[in-house]
Amino acid sequence: MHIEIVTIGNELLNGDLADTNTARLGTLLRQHGLFVRAGQTVPDVRAAIIEALRIASRADVVLVSGGLGPTEDDLTVSSMADLMAVPLVEHTPTLERIKARFASRGFPFTPNNAQQALVPEGAEVFDNPVGTAPHVQVQHGKTRYFFFPGVPSELARLADDYLVPWLAANAPVKVYRSAIFKTFGKTESQVATLLDGLLRDPRMHVAYRAHMPEIQVSLHVDAADAEGRELLERSASHVREALGDIVYAEDAKASLVSVIARELIAAGQTIATAESCTGGLVAKMCTDLAGSSAWFKEGVVAYDNAVKVARLGVPTVLLAAHGAVSREVCQAMAEGIVATANTDWGLAVTGIAGPGGGTETKPVGLVYVALAGRGRPTKVVERRLPFDRERNRVVSAYAVLDLLRRALMAAEQIA
Amino acid sequence: MHIEIVTIGNELLNGDLADTNTARLGTLLRQHGLFVRAGQTVPDVRAAIIEALRIASRADVVLVSGGLGPTEDDLTVSSMADLMAVPLVEHTPTLERIKARFASRGFPFTPNNAQQALVPEGAEVFDNPVGTAPHVQVQHGKTRYFFFPGVPSELARLADDYLVPWLAANAPVKVYRSAIFKTFGKTESQVATLLDGLLRDPRMHVAYRAHMPEIQVSLHVDAADAEGRELLERSASHVREALGDIVYAEDAKASLVSVIARELIAAGQTIATAESCTGGLVAKMCTDLAGSSAWFKEGVVAYDNAVKVARLGVPTVLLAAHGAVSREVCQAMAEGIVATANTDWGLAVTGIAGPGGGTETKPVGLVYVALAGRGRPTKVVERRLPFDRERNRVVSAYAVLDLLRRALMAAEQIA
Repeated sequence: MHIEIVTIGNELLNGDLADTNTARLGTLLRQHGLFVRAGQTVPDVRAAIIEALRIASRADVVLVSGGLGPTEDDLTVSSMADLMAVPLVEHTPTLERIKARFASRGFPFTPNNAQQALVPEGAEVFDNPVGTAPHVQVQHGKTRYFFFPGVPSELARLADDYLVPWLAANAPVKVYRSAIFKTFGKTESQVATLLDGLLRDPRMHVAYRAHMPEIQVSLHVDAADAEGRELLERSASHVREALGDIVYAEDAKASLVSVIARELIAAGQTIATAESCTGGLVAKMCTDLAGSSAWFKEGVVAYDNAVKVARLGVPTVLLAAHGAVSREVCQAMAEGIVATANTDWGLAVTGIAGPGGGTETKPVGLVYVALAGRGRPTKVVERRLPFDRERNRVVSAYAVLDLLRRALMAAEQIA
Repeated sequence: MHIEIVTIGNELLNGDLADTNTARLGTLLRQHGLFVRAGQTVPDVRAAIIEALRIASRADVVLVSGGLGPTEDDLTVSSMADLMAVPLVEHTPTLERIKARFASRGFPFTPNNAQQALVPEGAEVFDNPVGTAPHVQVQHGKTRYFFFPGVPSELARLADDYLVPWLAANAPVKVYRSAIFKTFGKTESQVATLLDGLLRDPRMHVAYRAHMPEIQVSLHVDAADAEGRELLERSASHVREALGDIVYAEDAKASLVSVIARELIAAGQTIATAESCTGGLVAKMCTDLAGSSAWFKEGVVAYDNAVKVARLGVPTVLLAAHGAVSREVCQAMAEGIVATANTDWGLAVTGIAGPGGGTETKPVGLVYVALAGRGRPTKVVERRLPFDRERNRVVSAYAVLDLLRRALMAAEQIA
């Protein structure tokens, strides 16, 4: 089944608003094993809308969003009537429903609201329980057009109420399965190289997604039969082996922090953070997660050197001898936060995020991350990052969290 | 000038990701008085990409985003070559640049990376200072195609570097002027109500943009003549008066933190933060700004009550009597961080971000923010926020920073 989307509205093209309805419909369709073949976005201009609807007639199903309101720049339905060369007719039950809706809220019914009850002759019209514009479906040649309001919550509700049942009755049954691998530590091309040649089956669709600094690999397969399911399992196991411990989760909803949280809670352990260049980002990422107070105890943003001494007990001689951005000071920060916070783990970051502050020997992007734990040697890692300030900070935060993830995984394997 | 956009990537159609590049390009073009006539989105499928590029040839300028990576599902450039019926050729300077980029970071150069140096014969190729894929422009018939990576930050940078100068040289000159008002403290509909009836001139385009938790109001006017310029100035002055001190900047590039930083640097003052529910977000927002070490000294993320006592000197009796989320404890946190950090200002936040942790008397969304300063009474404000965890945290961070902004502005007016 060839499905396309048309979204309509000046605000989607002039920078006022990013289109989220396409992603919303894409998610819904994927749950039914269906994929969108193309999307078009056009402004509130009759000729542009008609042309987009005409181009979309190459599809079996066209999902249209926006332009159903009561104002003169709402042209979607009348443009469809123009494309079909049929008149607009009033749908009386809709007009009555809109009038009743206005009366029940004490809003005055103004003449322009009657526009929302006009539909192309021959259209099927469905009640909108959450707004005024009705849901309209028309058949034009081989193509069925579905019209939704642009308001995301109304679109979502009407798609659930009317599109899903239609798909269940009309779309070919597909059993589509996916596997996802979330990784940190290698670039997209390095990940692709590791997987080179492993996933050549034409029934398998492989997608890479760079969500800085993570790379996600997903496999999609039409798994209507045992062969398809086996293909997915076999391929997933190849990917697992090839990528090894850069995979931190195989779950679309997991994050690096949620994986760490699960392990910490299971082990009854706690952490604290000591940050210089990341300036609170690591603590913020940890506490983004609801329930983090169970395992995140405190953070110190030791931006100033005096704070590294006063709050973390970093010896002034170390700072004088090696500078704030050094392996030695990073280690002392991690050990200092564990000691002062009395937690199981202490994470530390110090570095030069840029754009200023670099020197010949300590360039922008030089970062140290450290993990201290009770009764174990502190691990310190040097990174030389090539990014801008924002991305250097994000990668540094990931790097120190990944140290903790690896330590927790190793502990789990020992236990 | 007829401009269209083509965005490419499975992730834009299968629900994984909403397209933000179209809105980003739309914003940039509007600043030049130009508008996008249509957008198309297609998956990583050669036939679909070629067809979209072919349809877009009705335009004078086509801005293409995505599909420039090193993997086998990156098909954009080779599809363009197919449409033009020209071969792909290696652009040697790009290949050398990519190799050098990899070498400088110590990444191995894998053969698939060479794909990013292939361009349609006759293309113009421009360096990408922030990534591997070059920016490519090709002329095909009357249409000029511009190719950008799908990564939003790379697209933004390359559009600034190459598209903007091209437009300046080739687009019909329009004198389009804008005024922007960045506000914090009221909802979009409250802001719109304040401005109701003030901006009725048909030559004036008013846009509201909710960038949670800020509302931006922008005025755009075709100011080719003195009348247009006057209209903009008059309208801007009406807006300024109507919105008052919720406007924190009239500059598209300013942020709440950059405004605060400017004032602190001018006054030679420093700050420190004590955060509970925001978990480091305030410190992170401050240190996002390059050069923040001049005025941001330290932050304490006092998630655990024991930390509020140990690091900030909050009296245990206060915690016992009023609880961690209370006016009294927030005040003690702000005064504690000023005293221990020895800064001019201390910012504190404590609250219940949710989803858990609420009670009858202290519901989710109850937040206190406080500002302490040397030799002045500490200001504490209670907020009851209706959002989810993430937005409750963001609004809380803005609220405490806005306390500081207002104090700095008041100090400036006195001086």
